[in-house]
Amino acid sequence: MAGGVGGARLVDGLAAVLPRQSLTVIVNTADDFTHLGMRISPDLDTVCYTLARLANPRTGWGRDHETWHMLDELQQLGGPTWFRMGDRDLATHLERTRRLAAGERLSAITADFCTAWRVRTAVLPMTDQAVSTIVDTKEMGPLTFQAYFVMHGWRPRITGFRLKGIRSARPAPGLLSALAGADGVIICPSNPWVSISPILAVKGIRAALEGKKIIAVSPIIGGRAVRGPAAKMYRELGIHPSALAVARHYEGLASHFVLDRVDSPLVASIRKLGMAPVITQTMMKSSTGRRRLAQVVLHSIGYKR
Amino acid sequence: MAGGVGGARLVDGLAAVLPRQSLTVIVNTADDFTHLGMRISPDLDTVCYTLARLANPRTGWGRDHETWHMLDELQQLGGPTWFRMGDRDLATHLERTRRLAAGERLSAITADFCTAWRVRTAVLPMTDQAVSTIVDTKEMGPLTFQAYFVMHGWRPRITGFRLKGIRSARPAPGLLSALAGADGVIICPSNPWVSISPILAVKGIRAALEGKKIIAVSPIIGGRAVRGPAAKMYRELGIHPSALAVARHYEGLASHFVLDRVDSPLVASIRKLGMAPVITQTMMKSSTGRRRLAQVVLHSIGYKR
Repeated sequence: MAGGVGGARLVDGLAAVLPRQSLTVIVNTADDFTHLGMRISPDLDTVCYTLARLANPRTGWGRDHETWHMLDELQQLGGPTWFRMGDRDLATHLERTRRLAAGERLSAITADFCTAWRVRTAVLPMTDQAVSTIVDTKEMGPLTFQAYFVMHGWRPRITGFRLKGIRSARPAPGLLSALAGADGVIICPSNPWVSISPILAVKGIRAALEGKKIIAVSPIIGGRAVRGPAAKMYRELGIHPSALAVARHYEGLASHFVLDRVDSPLVASIRKLGMAPVITQTMMKSSTGRRRLAQVVLHSIGYKR
Repeated sequence: MAGGVGGARLVDGLAAVLPRQSLTVIVNTADDFTHLGMRISPDLDTVCYTLARLANPRTGWGRDHETWHMLDELQQLGGPTWFRMGDRDLATHLERTRRLAAGERLSAITADFCTAWRVRTAVLPMTDQAVSTIVDTKEMGPLTFQAYFVMHGWRPRITGFRLKGIRSARPAPGLLSALAGADGVIICPSNPWVSISPILAVKGIRAALEGKKIIAVSPIIGGRAVRGPAAKMYRELGIHPSALAVARHYEGLASHFVLDRVDSPLVASIRKLGMAPVITQTMMKSSTGRRRLAQVVLHSIGYKR
């Protein structure tokens, strides 16, 4: 289960070390939104671009070798440029939107895109229905996720989250059977509040996880999020941000919990939550780092090739 | 009144020789269509890009210094690439679509785009309502104009034309008052069937032309269209393609008719239609050619600076 950049990096490592057809990625789609008439799926695109070796290695999101001519011209016209879309990236949004408008499912479109990009790993949106994370903020009231995250640079202080459309959302085709057949489930180092919680909130997914080996990787290292607002969110909700706070998020769900060496003092507390702690270096600074973390994760839950 | 490339070139010449605020361009919008979720106005864009010095001088349409990364990626995804849209050009379509979806009028959007592009000439769509030219063809039945023109490269043989939505179309704001105050009306060398006829078919426009000096420029030279399907259309409708056929198109409307030197044998026949013939070189091979033709046209209807 994965959200954006951090999730995509571990997914990339897993895809590199696992044999073909043994990995299914379930991706958060609650960040999806409609912008300039286009349906945009930021987390799906980040995961797919990363697996396809098309991602910008510096930002982690968007396309490599990208140009920005549309956006430059849009600015000239006074249009909304707060959401950065490169020229190559646009094709993904336009074609996705065209096919959704023609009545196709997001999961089927994603599968075809992956084929076109020669991605061999199965990538599934959590659901084919539209779900939107609404971030309640002190300063600006409710904001859609991308307005909070990109337009306002996650500056507003949060008071809570809601998932619009979650009640009507059903797991994407193939998702429950992938979970049923899985030897283990890996919760990537993605934001627990806005990347993983939406996936777990889709009807049927939590039930399908019962009795599974589930290993979660902390996106918080030494009290800080590697990137993004996870630590800030914990603080604003009155919770001390730490790997332990992340572990509590997955209490009763995860059987194993991966935390960074710098957080080893938390091991006893993790054990008390009923999880087997796994200490390793969790920062993924290179493709070697991605593969190494993937191997540690797989080894911890007893996966053997 | 103008359609695509030929019209845009004379408009460009007129804008160059006329004082500011003395020219209003009325542009065909019956070629407009929706593609990849975007509302595209090919003739408006060609006229505006030409006036803004943003047009590709080789093709006459689209943007200069253009890149095609979106389209390359769209092809990779198996999307529809028959309509060529460059990366810079996309901003126009996306922003227009965004503003139309927000309830704004095409004429207001066009005016703002012209301001952003520093176009000083007033450019008006013929109407703010959606009108679509449907081309009836022998081989493929009814086709929307861009499907006929671009997708099928104007190969299907035509049997007639219809204008979907024309009954609900009203002249764009400012159009009738511009006509009322005009010393003269110039019908550019655009396709009479699919560029000029739709403008004339908008309710109220023909009536506003009563008693005006109207000068039409033939887009057919020596029996051939300078570009596009005008001559082929005449043939398929059983009419010998010539400047005379174009003049007949405007019989009872135009007071003056501009035809190329090579067509001077037609002068007597033009006179019989009640029009004053104007013989000149009508090919516009350079910006000098555009200005020269503009001056001949203006001089013919007695315009003095």
